[in-house]
Amino acid sequence: MIQPFQIARGPRVRFGRGEAASVAEEARALGMKRPMLLTDPGLASAGVLEPVTESLRKAGADFRLYEKAEPNPTDESILRAKAFYEGHGCLGTIALGGGSAIDTAKAMNMLLANGGRPSDYYGVDKPAKRGPAFIAVPTTAGTGSEVTRASIITDVERQTKSSIHSDTLYADVAVVDSALLAKLPRYFAAGALMDALTHAIESAGSPKASPWTEALCMQAIASIGRHARRFVGDPADPEAADPLALAATLAGASFTNTGLGIVHALTHPVYSFFGGHHGTTNGVLLATVMRFNLPAMREKYARMAPLLADPPEAGALDPRDPGAAEAAIEGVRALARDIGIPPDLRALGAKAEYLDRMAQEAAKSPTVRTNPVHATAEDMKRLYLELMG
Amino acid sequence: MIQPFQIARGPRVRFGRGEAASVAEEARALGMKRPMLLTDPGLASAGVLEPVTESLRKAGADFRLYEKAEPNPTDESILRAKAFYEGHGCLGTIALGGGSAIDTAKAMNMLLANGGRPSDYYGVDKPAKRGPAFIAVPTTAGTGSEVTRASIITDVERQTKSSIHSDTLYADVAVVDSALLAKLPRYFAAGALMDALTHAIESAGSPKASPWTEALCMQAIASIGRHARRFVGDPADPEAADPLALAATLAGASFTNTGLGIVHALTHPVYSFFGGHHGTTNGVLLATVMRFNLPAMREKYARMAPLLADPPEAGALDPRDPGAAEAAIEGVRALARDIGIPPDLRALGAKAEYLDRMAQEAAKSPTVRTNPVHATAEDMKRLYLELMG
Repeated sequence: MIQPFQIARGPRVRFGRGEAASVAEEARALGMKRPMLLTDPGLASAGVLEPVTESLRKAGADFRLYEKAEPNPTDESILRAKAFYEGHGCLGTIALGGGSAIDTAKAMNMLLANGGRPSDYYGVDKPAKRGPAFIAVPTTAGTGSEVTRASIITDVERQTKSSIHSDTLYADVAVVDSALLAKLPRYFAAGALMDALTHAIESAGSPKASPWTEALCMQAIASIGRHARRFVGDPADPEAADPLALAATLAGASFTNTGLGIVHALTHPVYSFFGGHHGTTNGVLLATVMRFNLPAMREKYARMAPLLADPPEAGALDPRDPGAAEAAIEGVRALARDIGIPPDLRALGAKAEYLDRMAQEAAKSPTVRTNPVHATAEDMKRLYLELMG
Repeated sequence: MIQPFQIARGPRVRFGRGEAASVAEEARALGMKRPMLLTDPGLASAGVLEPVTESLRKAGADFRLYEKAEPNPTDESILRAKAFYEGHGCLGTIALGGGSAIDTAKAMNMLLANGGRPSDYYGVDKPAKRGPAFIAVPTTAGTGSEVTRASIITDVERQTKSSIHSDTLYADVAVVDSALLAKLPRYFAAGALMDALTHAIESAGSPKASPWTEALCMQAIASIGRHARRFVGDPADPEAADPLALAATLAGASFTNTGLGIVHALTHPVYSFFGGHHGTTNGVLLATVMRFNLPAMREKYARMAPLLADPPEAGALDPRDPGAAEAAIEGVRALARDIGIPPDLRALGAKAEYLDRMAQEAAKSPTVRTNPVHATAEDMKRLYLELMG
């Protein structure tokens, strides 16, 4: 028997090299009278915005540019974005950026329909209504936020990362164009793809995983295993960027239905105490957490092994080989090393004296419930210690 | 590079043994004030309706039962269903049955929002508006109609099978419960699963296929290859019925985005001239059409080979083996034989004198455009001749 599961009604996905030029067409089809183009500062000067703004200008769209999405957006920053939207009489949102810009847009859009503040909706299934028309355009191959139902928000008052999970948060359309990745700095390209790989591997291990989500995860892992090194070497190379862009979206389309595991539980405290890049931290943690989860994941890791083989050569490993599961873990470790992920938490600036408090915080994460092996605060502490190198 | 592609915003899917009991909850969540329960005649007496009607009664839902969906529904039958809906002041549709009941509901629902007759909307993307709330509950593991955007309609006046394709036709929710398959007669179980297998294999071969849809297809093919014989032996066995129910839905979720191939082009004329069961006819044709498509499909068939091996033992075949592609075709042939699909078109009552006209009709099918190898009317004729045994 297959455990009962659900697949949400996510956004329509439009994928392909150059498809960012279709944003104006999509905006028109969704009836966006005056779209707010919400993005990260810096993307305009990097030229990443251009395909989208050009498509909007050509179509004569009356859009308003807002470039103040924050990395790890705060509740305050979301209210500021909403004030801009309302002040300019916008109708429709186009979010272009990494997870932060898209998460900002999700929360803002939800507030436009439901009122109140972000903190009124922390948790699961709180908002009642969908917001106005919304297009998400990712510029990193990482978070998968363009196809997920979550918005991660840093609450200034509570000094915690909180999140809103609701089917009302889904974008109407996700436009995924690997050409937007071309100028991604090597460090961010590597971190983002380790984020996507973490999503795929954790989603496959969730008790809510199904053959449906697993098919998406395995495809994502295969693409990453095969093309990650080349992508980090040159994110402008379409032969590598296309599969990586797709892998991030596939992993998102999976984990939005399954939840994640304790890599994410462990990563958030690292951020609250020491900052750093979310995906990079995931990359530091992933192989070690896989080893912790191995007792429950032997069969699934074994099937990942050929996809993560180093050198990446499909079929070089057989899932039935003894040691295949361990080989998958070593494959992840080799990949992280080859693309320049730091070796341990110390390299990220973590200090031993905070590990107790971090472990306490990690143990409270909702992702503990969707990890294949139950992890206590003591387990979290041991994992942090091991990861201090 | 990956060819640009789109994934539509299909229904939310709720899958699992016994999930039919959740229909009332879903109907309430969708605001169905007086749902029309649209089904095939005979399903009530077979007890297949019961989990759904019981759930609606327990919830005190004010539903109206309409048991007159026709197999291969005509335009007239759709207007009759619509008259029932309007006459009873229904709000919301629950379609329960095979592809015919669900296709009837799709077309009816679309007309409720857009007016007119089915023939006003034949073709692609004609309807402008979505219909009222709509839940689809399949009772065969075959058509995948619960997750597709098409309604196939027999036009009485024109004496042809026509179809309406539009994203507005998607159900809001698909509830897939393999317990509803338990009483499927062996013949229909076999035909339905060959329909699903045809969808998966043709979708994988479409020029619109992507790594996303291919992941779904391969999962569907794996489930069918492994469990089909056991499922036909006993459709009440959850260990086989669950993966088969899911395979049909996965194949549907794939081909709704890619289109199909010429098995479907060839099958429709067989129906118009001689009648018969759609899936069974697909089952007769599939391996022979695969051989025709082999020049363009060698690599993809090779990857299907381990999934279709007989006996079904994952990994017994290696996609890199010479002859792997041919082994996939033989795997399909062996499967069809083992589950009692007739060996040729003669066994379905086809007569040689009609083959010319059938080939002409087949060559006009829109599925010709999404077949991996271009097929002319002459090719169709040759295939029919070969299939006469």
